[in-house]
Amino acid sequence: MANLKDIGLAAGLNILGAVLFLVAFAFLRLQPINDRVYFPKWYLKGARESPSHGGAFVRKFVNLDMRSYLKFLSWMPAALKMPEDELISHAGLDSAVYLRIYLVGLKIFSPIAILAFAVLVPVNWTNDTLKFSTLQHSNIDKLSISNIPVGSKRFIAHLTMAYVFTFWTCYVLLREYEIVAQMRLRFLASEKRRPDQFTVLVRNIPPDPDESIGELVEHFFLVNHPDHYLTHQVVYNANKLSKLVEEKTKMQNWLDYYQLKFERNASKRPTTKTGFLGCFGAKVDAIDYYKSEIERIENEEAEEREKIIKDSKSVVPAAFVSFRTRWGAAVCAQTQQTSNPTVWLTEWAPEPRDVYWDNLSIPFVSLTVRRLIVAVAFFFLNFFYVIPIAFVQSLANLEGIEKAVPFLKPLIEIPTIKSFIQGFLPGIALKIFLILLPSILMFMSKVEGLTSISSLERRAASKYYIFIFFNVFLASIITGSALEQLKTYIHQSANEIPRTVGEAIPMKATFFITYVMVDGWAGVAGEILRLKPLVIFHLKNFFLVKTEKDREEAMDPGSIGFDSSEPQIQLYFLLGLVYAAVTPFLLPFILVFFGFSYIIYRHQIINVYNQEYESAAAFWPSVHGRIITALIISQLLLLGLLSTKGAGQSTPVLLVLPVVTFYFHRYCKNRYEPTFVKCPLQEAMKKDTLERAREPGFDLKGYLMNAYVHPVFKGDDDDEKFSIADEPEAEQVLVATKRQSRRNTPVPSKYNGSDSPSLPEIVNDQRL
Amino acid sequence: MANLKDIGLAAGLNILGAVLFLVAFAFLRLQPINDRVYFPKWYLKGARESPSHGGAFVRKFVNLDMRSYLKFLSWMPAALKMPEDELISHAGLDSAVYLRIYLVGLKIFSPIAILAFAVLVPVNWTNDTLKFSTLQHSNIDKLSISNIPVGSKRFIAHLTMAYVFTFWTCYVLLREYEIVAQMRLRFLASEKRRPDQFTVLVRNIPPDPDESIGELVEHFFLVNHPDHYLTHQVVYNANKLSKLVEEKTKMQNWLDYYQLKFERNASKRPTTKTGFLGCFGAKVDAIDYYKSEIERIENEEAEEREKIIKDSKSVVPAAFVSFRTRWGAAVCAQTQQTSNPTVWLTEWAPEPRDVYWDNLSIPFVSLTVRRLIVAVAFFFLNFFYVIPIAFVQSLANLEGIEKAVPFLKPLIEIPTIKSFIQGFLPGIALKIFLILLPSILMFMSKVEGLTSISSLERRAASKYYIFIFFNVFLASIITGSALEQLKTYIHQSANEIPRTVGEAIPMKATFFITYVMVDGWAGVAGEILRLKPLVIFHLKNFFLVKTEKDREEAMDPGSIGFDSSEPQIQLYFLLGLVYAAVTPFLLPFILVFFGFSYIIYRHQIINVYNQEYESAAAFWPSVHGRIITALIISQLLLLGLLSTKGAGQSTPVLLVLPVVTFYFHRYCKNRYEPTFVKCPLQEAMKKDTLERAREPGFDLKGYLMNAYVHPVFKGDDDDEKFSIADEPEAEQVLVATKRQSRRNTPVPSKYNGSDSPSLPEIVNDQRL
Repeated sequence: MANLKDIGLAAGLNILGAVLFLVAFAFLRLQPINDRVYFPKWYLKGARESPSHGGAFVRKFVNLDMRSYLKFLSWMPAALKMPEDELISHAGLDSAVYLRIYLVGLKIFSPIAILAFAVLVPVNWTNDTLKFSTLQHSNIDKLSISNIPVGSKRFIAHLTMAYVFTFWTCYVLLREYEIVAQMRLRFLASEKRRPDQFTVLVRNIPPDPDESIGELVEHFFLVNHPDHYLTHQVVYNANKLSKLVEEKTKMQNWLDYYQLKFERNASKRPTTKTGFLGCFGAKVDAIDYYKSEIERIENEEAEEREKIIKDSKSVVPAAFVSFRTRWGAAVCAQTQQTSNPTVWLTEWAPEPRDVYWDNLSIPFVSLTVRRLIVAVAFFFLNFFYVIPIAFVQSLANLEGIEKAVPFLKPLIEIPTIKSFIQGFLPGIALKIFLILLPSILMFMSKVEGLTSISSLERRAASKYYIFIFFNVFLASIITGSALEQLKTYIHQSANEIPRTVGEAIPMKATFFITYVMVDGWAGVAGEILRLKPLVIFHLKNFFLVKTEKDREEAMDPGSIGFDSSEPQIQLYFLLGLVYAAVTPFLLPFILVFFGFSYIIYRHQIINVYNQEYESAAAFWPSVHGRIITALIISQLLLLGLLSTKGAGQSTPVLLVLPVVTFYFHRYCKNRYEPTFVKCPLQEAMKKDTLERAREPGFDLKGYLMNAYVHPVFKGDDDDEKFSIADEPEAEQVLVATKRQSRRNTPVPSKYNGSDSPSLPEIVNDQRL
Repeated sequence: MANLKDIGLAAGLNILGAVLFLVAFAFLRLQPINDRVYFPKWYLKGARESPSHGGAFVRKFVNLDMRSYLKFLSWMPAALKMPEDELISHAGLDSAVYLRIYLVGLKIFSPIAILAFAVLVPVNWTNDTLKFSTLQHSNIDKLSISNIPVGSKRFIAHLTMAYVFTFWTCYVLLREYEIVAQMRLRFLASEKRRPDQFTVLVRNIPPDPDESIGELVEHFFLVNHPDHYLTHQVVYNANKLSKLVEEKTKMQNWLDYYQLKFERNASKRPTTKTGFLGCFGAKVDAIDYYKSEIERIENEEAEEREKIIKDSKSVVPAAFVSFRTRWGAAVCAQTQQTSNPTVWLTEWAPEPRDVYWDNLSIPFVSLTVRRLIVAVAFFFLNFFYVIPIAFVQSLANLEGIEKAVPFLKPLIEIPTIKSFIQGFLPGIALKIFLILLPSILMFMSKVEGLTSISSLERRAASKYYIFIFFNVFLASIITGSALEQLKTYIHQSANEIPRTVGEAIPMKATFFITYVMVDGWAGVAGEILRLKPLVIFHLKNFFLVKTEKDREEAMDPGSIGFDSSEPQIQLYFLLGLVYAAVTPFLLPFILVFFGFSYIIYRHQIINVYNQEYESAAAFWPSVHGRIITALIISQLLLLGLLSTKGAGQSTPVLLVLPVVTFYFHRYCKNRYEPTFVKCPLQEAMKKDTLERAREPGFDLKGYLMNAYVHPVFKGDDDDEKFSIADEPEAEQVLVATKRQSRRNTPVPSKYNGSDSPSLPEIVNDQRL
């Protein structure tokens, strides 16, 4: 087991790693050629342009100003400077509230760490149990509960602290829920007119032999919401069309490329081959070929478009129904329409860009079946994923490779390469699986039939959390795959499981400390470096980018990725809460993680990520719920641990905690969750009244007419990507953004009168 | 262990017992003096009058017509004759659907019993395991799964049957849910105008320093439901007033009694004493005394009434808000009003007579705390109730009694009495507890803060079911108190528990057969005898009844008592499903129970019970859910049993069943439960439109003005009891009822042209 020195060494190494990442980031960030990798958000906002328009040729790619390299951490204060309100208008409420998760971590664990070090560390330290023990132990174990003799009265300190920690965590969670709920309400109230405020998604419209879906919807809502119904938009099944559009775009890009080439070198008309990847087949004139191809696709597309609009079969039994008032929409979204609860299902419509179009037409009965299938599949994925991987591993051995590709045999037989492959191969299948896991979970969630991207991400996140809990947390503690654990759970009694796990917890503290440093410190520092997008951008730039538009597309701002990143933060909450009363020495490492991640993600959110949708922090209830889950798990494990330490009489005292915590959760759920799910009529009425007074003659019908159109029916590609630009409040966002960008992010002009000399000037210098 | 002969003897005895009860019932029922005990429903409906108005004196009390005694089972076809539609209009949908629970039992278990006897009994019978076994066994065990050798291939038959039984049960449940949902919808649609259709119960109205609750409600709804709000009624805290009203009624009765006495014997003015129970204190003139007392109470009452109406503190923060249309009420009931989900809580108002007034003013925060407290209390009640009972038992021994009441000592010391007390006493505390249990559970549910009597009964029923499951079913199988079980559950692993329980199941078959006969056959036959109400009615009649009104009150029709009777039926579902694949021999006994109970309860519902409220079968989702629970329990126990029988490889095959059953339940829940909880807008709109066309000028406001007034504010006592008579549709019910009563229930006139000679004529004969 590692002692303090080892931990110190590991910490040093990891800090070094993190610093190296940060230095590399500072260096790469300042190169104009990487500008689109590290500041894509500003490009998308239109507040920044390619640095290649002027100046010396070299300066376009490399920053030669040496001074700027000295202040390599200057982005940190810059990232912290933007106030929360401006952050909300710059990056949306989702991002701002996402950052609060890290803040919650700091708020929960700072006082807990101080208290634990003030109370528990002395209590643990002043024992001699481990000194006389024959067991291997380290200095860290001397700080932990392991150092207390069996049956000691000192466990009262841990009991008391468990109560204090629970109370404090619940208090922070309650306050934070309150704040986030307020933020959401303020955000929703301050929003300008948006199509989704007036619109309800209606699904499972029952088929009618006499009327088309559109007529049916109109009649139904004219009868049942006579004073409020305004208009509706049917949903087309446009899968084929979107494929055609995609193909046309590709062809258009190739045409642009060859035309550009021809312009540059007018002497030689470019040619291409018609076959696979332009490598085989007859040689033809490239420009003519692509022109004719585009024409062909355009004809097909027009045909398909007509077919979709004419053919009643391409209308899926779902529609976006809009109302005259927000009140009418709020009423329709919250009520049951008919006596059959499987038809005419209404729900608040997601933002247009948040809609997941493919799932709109799933019939009600199949939803239960789909959920059952996904639940079973996820169960097997969680507990049995090691089996197929072991199978793949057994196939992908050296003999297998030699058989499959005999000509590689001489190469593989070289001893160095052989041993490298042998060491590397078994892990690769697992690694690939773990990389693919979030996509697999997302796919499962899609099968379940949710209709908005935001809800899909939330569902995938909860699956990922369960996976991490069993396959990272528990698997590390009781060192067995989830499959082996499953056997244990089945064969052990209900009070034996917390004992087994709880007993092993103190021994794994050093492992988790290392884990926090590797995954939490260096890993997060790696996030800011954006190595993958950096490499991909430059590869694309070098091999594929033909036009400015392509460059725009090669830029991959990414997003927070709630479905995979939030469960990873939750692991730290779990570790912190579990170890708070057991090995307080872990807490400072967790605190560093939360603080460091907070700064880095704040920077990324300001400069890089571009959220695909805005759900107004609809994910907070699940964040809250998972922290509560972690709290209850920590209480049960402490209970198990103490019962093995001869403090069995503490069990009833500790059992109170999970019960009370559970009811605290129920209270919070009743008190705050509706704010994230329902739409209060009072607020709707307020906004309606205000708006009626302000703009009495507004043409709402015209405004809503084309709000919910399948992306392929929107002519321009950009609309699809940044549909926010279509909406009136986008202007306001842009105004705030420009002001912001002058203050603490780089802009092309140096003379912006900013009083913040740090980041902007350093970056601006390079432009001159 | 009992063999077939023993069971036959027990069956004979119990059948004899049941027949004796039925004969006693047939005899007692025909005596005019008992008429109010056995036909109270008809008195309440006004379709029957006291038989004491005419005829010979003796005939008033005793039926001298010998013929009528011969057809002592004639009530059975009569009970079955009333068609379901007429039953609904006679006794309400709740009662009609309650009877369907027994029908569901018959539908589920008839085919299962046939199939089990056709397939499983031969499979079990043709083995010799038990013949060569050293274990004690009976003939019944030869029919059960115990007779199959360990590891036999014959278990495939049981596996297949488990699938068939599950499929059939689910199919019946699905169809029944569909039917009951349709019945509810039809019932609601056919209802005439009722106050609760237009009314929403608003709770947790936030206090306002400037406005009274009434003004606040009016302003809030005028702003947020401007087109729909009509009127509202505040709720007064009238506890003190209702006490005064009660006291006045009592005094009034005494006055009536003495006045009656004085009229009969005018020579002597009656006197009474002013002290305790009229036995102590100064002697005064009774009529004058009670007149003055009534006057005093009337003054107090008027004062209190004024105080309640004037004092703003006596208004609780809850109100019944009525809307212009059913649509408006449906919208308000289903939506969230403000951004704070703990204030202005709206829910569909219960029927006026279903309102549980005491709980209307509970603030939101305390609800969670109350639920926590009740959950903990119920946990202890369920698992630890034996402790206080053992304590009471230890106190209530002979020495204790002798100490407490020394003058009884000589009596107790008589050997016969002593041994009787010693044998009787230990059980009495437990017996009292079990008799009180439904009331205790009801009290717990009241503490939880539900606002309608129907929901209180449903909540109490689910508690009672849990109690029965642990303390009757499991306690009988693994023969230990719930407390001992708790230890087992904690110390055994998750797959060990079904094994332990499953293994013991076949051995307990004979016990449960006896249980079914005693509790299910003789017990149910006892129900029709109404021994307790009979005795109480005659005691009251003899000692207390002074006026006709008192006699009316002495009549106790009772009601179905959903909170205690439904969980008892559920025990039979559980037994039937658990034993279907294990010991099919139990099934016929269960079938007899369901059939017999169906007839008896149908008779009681037609002639006796008077439901306090009408919830339109709102309890069906819990009935369905509990049968599903029983099904899953039976699957798990079969799984446990088979795994001890060396058929461990069947586990995965059987594990599929609970998972599929659970998802079947989820499907049903999504598909049908909203029908029982929500109020579809389409239906509301339909009724509104119809009514507007039919009665365009109806004064709805006047109609709703006093619908939701605390019972004490209604002048007449009868209003409180039968508030249905106030409502317009009551007339319709009454019409149907009268027609009904002529056809197959006793009426005073013989010459009614009925073609049903059985029951009416027999009963009518006695009147002449």
